[in-house]
Amino acid sequence: MNSNKFAEMEAIFNPRSVAIIGASPGVDMATLAHIKTRIRDRLFLVNPKYTEIFSKKCYPSVLNVEEPLDYAIISVNASLVCRMVEECIQKGIKCVQVFSAGFSETGLPEGAALEQKLRETAAGKIRLIGPNCFGIYCPRSGLAIIPESTEEEGHIGVIAQSGSVAELFSYFGRTKNISFSKVVSYGNAADLDCPDFLEYLADDPDTHIIALYIEGSKDGRRLKEALTYAAGRKPVFVIKGGMSDSGNRAARSHTGQLTGTPVLWRSLFRQCGAVQVSNNDEMMNVAIAFTHSPMPRRNGVAMIANSGGLSVMQTDLLVSEGMNVPRFSDDTIQKLRKIVPVAGTSIGNPLDAWPLFYRTQRDAGNMAEIIRIIAADKHVDLVIFMFDQFRYMRRALREGAGEHMQTVTDLMLEGCSYCRDVLGKPVFLSITLDPFLQDEEERNVDLALKDAFQQQGFPVFPSNDAAARAVGALYKYDRLAMTSRT
Amino acid sequence: MNSNKFAEMEAIFNPRSVAIIGASPGVDMATLAHIKTRIRDRLFLVNPKYTEIFSKKCYPSVLNVEEPLDYAIISVNASLVCRMVEECIQKGIKCVQVFSAGFSETGLPEGAALEQKLRETAAGKIRLIGPNCFGIYCPRSGLAIIPESTEEEGHIGVIAQSGSVAELFSYFGRTKNISFSKVVSYGNAADLDCPDFLEYLADDPDTHIIALYIEGSKDGRRLKEALTYAAGRKPVFVIKGGMSDSGNRAARSHTGQLTGTPVLWRSLFRQCGAVQVSNNDEMMNVAIAFTHSPMPRRNGVAMIANSGGLSVMQTDLLVSEGMNVPRFSDDTIQKLRKIVPVAGTSIGNPLDAWPLFYRTQRDAGNMAEIIRIIAADKHVDLVIFMFDQFRYMRRALREGAGEHMQTVTDLMLEGCSYCRDVLGKPVFLSITLDPFLQDEEERNVDLALKDAFQQQGFPVFPSNDAAARAVGALYKYDRLAMTSRT
Repeated sequence: MNSNKFAEMEAIFNPRSVAIIGASPGVDMATLAHIKTRIRDRLFLVNPKYTEIFSKKCYPSVLNVEEPLDYAIISVNASLVCRMVEECIQKGIKCVQVFSAGFSETGLPEGAALEQKLRETAAGKIRLIGPNCFGIYCPRSGLAIIPESTEEEGHIGVIAQSGSVAELFSYFGRTKNISFSKVVSYGNAADLDCPDFLEYLADDPDTHIIALYIEGSKDGRRLKEALTYAAGRKPVFVIKGGMSDSGNRAARSHTGQLTGTPVLWRSLFRQCGAVQVSNNDEMMNVAIAFTHSPMPRRNGVAMIANSGGLSVMQTDLLVSEGMNVPRFSDDTIQKLRKIVPVAGTSIGNPLDAWPLFYRTQRDAGNMAEIIRIIAADKHVDLVIFMFDQFRYMRRALREGAGEHMQTVTDLMLEGCSYCRDVLGKPVFLSITLDPFLQDEEERNVDLALKDAFQQQGFPVFPSNDAAARAVGALYKYDRLAMTSRT
Repeated sequence: MNSNKFAEMEAIFNPRSVAIIGASPGVDMATLAHIKTRIRDRLFLVNPKYTEIFSKKCYPSVLNVEEPLDYAIISVNASLVCRMVEECIQKGIKCVQVFSAGFSETGLPEGAALEQKLRETAAGKIRLIGPNCFGIYCPRSGLAIIPESTEEEGHIGVIAQSGSVAELFSYFGRTKNISFSKVVSYGNAADLDCPDFLEYLADDPDTHIIALYIEGSKDGRRLKEALTYAAGRKPVFVIKGGMSDSGNRAARSHTGQLTGTPVLWRSLFRQCGAVQVSNNDEMMNVAIAFTHSPMPRRNGVAMIANSGGLSVMQTDLLVSEGMNVPRFSDDTIQKLRKIVPVAGTSIGNPLDAWPLFYRTQRDAGNMAEIIRIIAADKHVDLVIFMFDQFRYMRRALREGAGEHMQTVTDLMLEGCSYCRDVLGKPVFLSITLDPFLQDEEERNVDLALKDAFQQQGFPVFPSNDAAARAVGALYKYDRLAMTSRT
């Protein structure tokens, strides 16, 4: 991306002042989202119906705002949008984000005509994001999509054709322990389109990984160029919404764009070096993995679990994700045999050894020691720890379970930190916690374990499958990057 | 299964009295599990070390128990198991479940020898479940695997080679709103093996669907016969643990049996008419679907959502599961166009229409009416409702969100009940609730919605993917059953 274009995009994501046209004290996500962020003192609300909203002055028009304005969010009836854009141009605003829907995505001729008029109104005079989009979340500048998003800056860049996908990322960042450099929902793309954002985030030093949700494109060649450019600079993961015929039809009626065939998209992503993931959950898991994990050197995974059955199923899933669950070396097996009881356990990889959860700090062969032994195995490049033990602990130890769990947490952290920080091998933790579980004691223990590991910067997943798929995505990207390097 | 064999199995699952050999006041899951069930007054604890456990008399040996005994659970060191079995035979006990591990699953020659001796000790004199297994959960008789399982009787039969898989089903039944006729963990299968349980549950009138977790088999021909017999009588879903080479190795070290090749297993299941699912979560979802849903007539799914992006991804997943997400008929579209606003929505299938969540009982085109219109479409055989709206509602309505949510719940229930009960079309509800979400208000709203739908007998899933896969499994079974019928 040339430096003028980059500077223009930088200015769009980091405006010095923002107007919200159509602000209201009711259901107005744009105002709710910005009223508390660091842009709040340079936020100007515009609506002729009000003189004040949330104790903030409200102007009849952007033309009445005395200060210069960089950026405007338009949230009025579709039929009024063009007039508002004209006022923005007159005011000297550089970019408008059109929140309003009712354009080409309706599938109706009048909607398409309105979008064409909008495009012509803006052309050459002002940049446009949308219409039919949630706009930008940029923690550094204070642009926001939802009221709940944090000001914590991170390194994940999200580009989404769908507003609700952008909303999901912004909302669940806190829950998932991931944070963002920039999130943009670009909707119908009457002006600025996916390739513009791809090229910008490719050059943006704050963005270390790009997550893209795309349903269709207006210009396949430009998209290909931008994807290739971005994927050559950082990991790009992509969801193509509408891979099936019906999904394609749903996508068309969602964003009103041409959507191509699944084969075409798959080969496009492969050629460009972008890694395709199948849905939003998987994308979140990839983001967690890339945020909190070093790259594994090779694909050898060791698993520590307390269930033979589950660890067998996870082995299958990991293998289908391109990983290997190798035998431990004889040396490792010998060391484990000395300290792991034989009955009811499997001394091998996966290690299925519930009795270890009952040892304390002072015991030989406690969990920290076991993790250190396994992590040191030359065939092991990454460790997955599957935790699903508290209810067993509670049966065995009753009132003592909570306190013992703290000991176990410390031992797990000790071993896992050694693995990651001393040996440089990634550790993934999965905690089986059913979302519908209404057992507050178990839930609180699981959440405390999650918090403890997240605080130490480990990637934590709420299911074994999620952890396995995230490991797979990490390795898949690494192989792809290696292939393109050689 | 001949009537003598059936009667023998019935007696095993419904003993009149039970002894626990090796009972202890410490970590003794068998005693904890049975001490409160309906078998408690016919439960006899045995351990020469104690005279009383949990205020219950403890006998030095089964031979000291005055009453006749039907069933014994042996939970002592592996080396002592054979002697205990001999005493059980002497006492006239008909079946022992050997909880103890330390047999062939250890992979050690001494373990295999011990198992051979156990088999010879029992042969012709007493039936044996295990060793290395959690045994039986039968709500009607009071046999139990874990202390938390309920006495609620249901119609799902679970047969699991892995103890922890049986434990997971027993434990999460309550959370998942499913209940069981019988659950059996059969471990190393020194005597009673998977085919025995399959044939029994195939003939058991209380079992309407069989969920099987298997890692390997000692007698492929018998397994094939039993699977064919069972799948001819009721739906049989199966997880084969160890489909990959590494998974296979893990399975061998878990149960110590020959495990075959993936291709062989897949073709076995296909030939027998059993439906393979990939893991435990999926199996649970299948159990929820079969417990709470009628069969769809054909594969046409309508989706109601509040996110274009997510509903596009779900359409793709449903299509990959063999479903169809058809266009609505013109008549339906016309009716919807009259009452659904155009801007920001997609009037089609999936229906992406967030404004509907803000209508009340008195409004024309409220959610109940929308569901009725969609459900009546001739192309629609099943409705999936994807709920992920509360945080939006809270932003818009603030303090009023909780009360409004009750109205929305009532409207959703009204429409969904009409669809299922009047039109006979299944309804699946998915509620997006992240297990790690630490927002108690949102969580409580989601759980209340779940409870309301579960109380009305609807299948409810904690993610869109889970709902889609469960719908796919239901239809896949139905097609299979139709094929074998014709």
